[in-house]
Amino acid sequence: MRDPSLLAVDWGTSSLRAYLLDETGAVLKRHSAPMGIRSVVAGGYETVFSEQCLPLIAEAPDTPVLMCGMVGSRQGWQEAPYVTCPTSLDVLADGVLRVRTEVARISIVPGLSYQASSGMIDVIRGEETQILGASAGDAISKGLICVPGTHSKWCHVSGERIEAFSTYLTGEMFEILRKHSVISQGLPEAAAIDSAAFLAGLERAAQGGSLLHEVFGVRTAWLFETFPPECLPGFLSGLLIGTEVQHATVQGVDRVGLIASGSTADNYRAACSYFGVECEALSSENVTVAGLWAVARQLTLV
Amino acid sequence: MRDPSLLAVDWGTSSLRAYLLDETGAVLKRHSAPMGIRSVVAGGYETVFSEQCLPLIAEAPDTPVLMCGMVGSRQGWQEAPYVTCPTSLDVLADGVLRVRTEVARISIVPGLSYQASSGMIDVIRGEETQILGASAGDAISKGLICVPGTHSKWCHVSGERIEAFSTYLTGEMFEILRKHSVISQGLPEAAAIDSAAFLAGLERAAQGGSLLHEVFGVRTAWLFETFPPECLPGFLSGLLIGTEVQHATVQGVDRVGLIASGSTADNYRAACSYFGVECEALSSENVTVAGLWAVARQLTLV
Repeated sequence: MRDPSLLAVDWGTSSLRAYLLDETGAVLKRHSAPMGIRSVVAGGYETVFSEQCLPLIAEAPDTPVLMCGMVGSRQGWQEAPYVTCPTSLDVLADGVLRVRTEVARISIVPGLSYQASSGMIDVIRGEETQILGASAGDAISKGLICVPGTHSKWCHVSGERIEAFSTYLTGEMFEILRKHSVISQGLPEAAAIDSAAFLAGLERAAQGGSLLHEVFGVRTAWLFETFPPECLPGFLSGLLIGTEVQHATVQGVDRVGLIASGSTADNYRAACSYFGVECEALSSENVTVAGLWAVARQLTLV
Repeated sequence: MRDPSLLAVDWGTSSLRAYLLDETGAVLKRHSAPMGIRSVVAGGYETVFSEQCLPLIAEAPDTPVLMCGMVGSRQGWQEAPYVTCPTSLDVLADGVLRVRTEVARISIVPGLSYQASSGMIDVIRGEETQILGASAGDAISKGLICVPGTHSKWCHVSGERIEAFSTYLTGEMFEILRKHSVISQGLPEAAAIDSAAFLAGLERAAQGGSLLHEVFGVRTAWLFETFPPECLPGFLSGLLIGTEVQHATVQGVDRVGLIASGSTADNYRAACSYFGVECEALSSENVTVAGLWAVARQLTLV
């Protein structure tokens, strides 16, 4: 096996993913576990890290470890304060936090904060590394990158700079409406996303109404049997994702880098296509590894 | 006591309100109970009606009974199918359902459905009677009437016609975001609405951003301590109500009839004022009684 030079770790809310990289940044070994920070008890980070990550560097215990994600939040191992955006790779690297621990040489990439002209402050933690991985790796050197999910992130990048970003609560809104609102009555517990109903949701979103009003249309679609109940989650999903994509790409964007996989990628690709935006699919693992590698090089850890 | 001529009943989701009216439509007696249709078991409507309402007409058992509200829904006593909107008092009266029961002469006012140009079907049940009461009573003979709440209703009226209406899930959105979303972390269980934070929410709404994005600003306001935690519900409420009021009054409306009381009325008055819309406060009891009275007269029940 080639020599390991960096243990790159993406430690988020729900999972931990570790990649042992060689001196070219290529993956030698990988390990993942459902041990996100939500599962870690207070004071338990060192133990979880030792169990999940140390085995990867057992033969080279001096290998530097660089982490990104919610592990650097106030609820994480140690807080790496937000760096303000616009920012660039070198400034972000300056904000990297050295973790006080003896188990390994561990650093954490900080998140970013951004204040829009509306006064709203937005934050990102973990995705900034993926975004840099996507832009530094020339996949998307200039433009818009989307990381969809519970809290979707849309970032404007230019080379190794992150200019601005916005969070949309799309995935979470889908879950709380589906489970806790008037819409939940009559909806199946779980259902695959029906593509025709999803398209109808996109069409509804394209009308540009207020979401506070339009979501009630999912209830009346049940009441008037516009769709069978098992199709209603698809209609709701299309309405929400359509609202997000339309708003995020409103400024004449025609191409987006999409860091997603599986059905999430399918849904966002369909929504982008509906609104005339071309998608370039980016692998989450590839851009995470590339981003941590770029920060590690900037810090001369590797 | 003057002779009773109508028992007017507003039987909604969470409460039952009964008004015994004299031959001029004035209230002789009133009774209310937290016996909304949510509390009524299947097949239990006759029993609840007999316990809660019959005592009011014990001395005049032939008094006609006219009801409005969710009692006429699919989950209610008997379903009074929706009448399509635009509609007028006489057409609505034609849709009144005679309840099959021996305990009294009971009829139920139907709800309304309305299909907007976007294709979305909207529904109301109960508010149509209040709206007619407000317009028939000359309080608002032409214009926009708002019935705020869990599901806020905004209705365009013209004399005894209801032209169009829209539902906004504002109150419900406030509850599910506050209780079940990422925003709930750090928020107090219950808190009075802080008026300065509410105003800040209105200001944020006025920027016209996407709600899916802007609601995340409540989370970051906690993270960056923009407000003390006890003020965050006020900020969220201002953001949501501001979004609703701005969208509902966007077509150059300068005056709104507001059927609300207490803190809900205060919040909507503040939001309307912020967006340059004058409010006329209308009593819920007055417009409900006037609406049921107008329908009863149209049907020559009185």
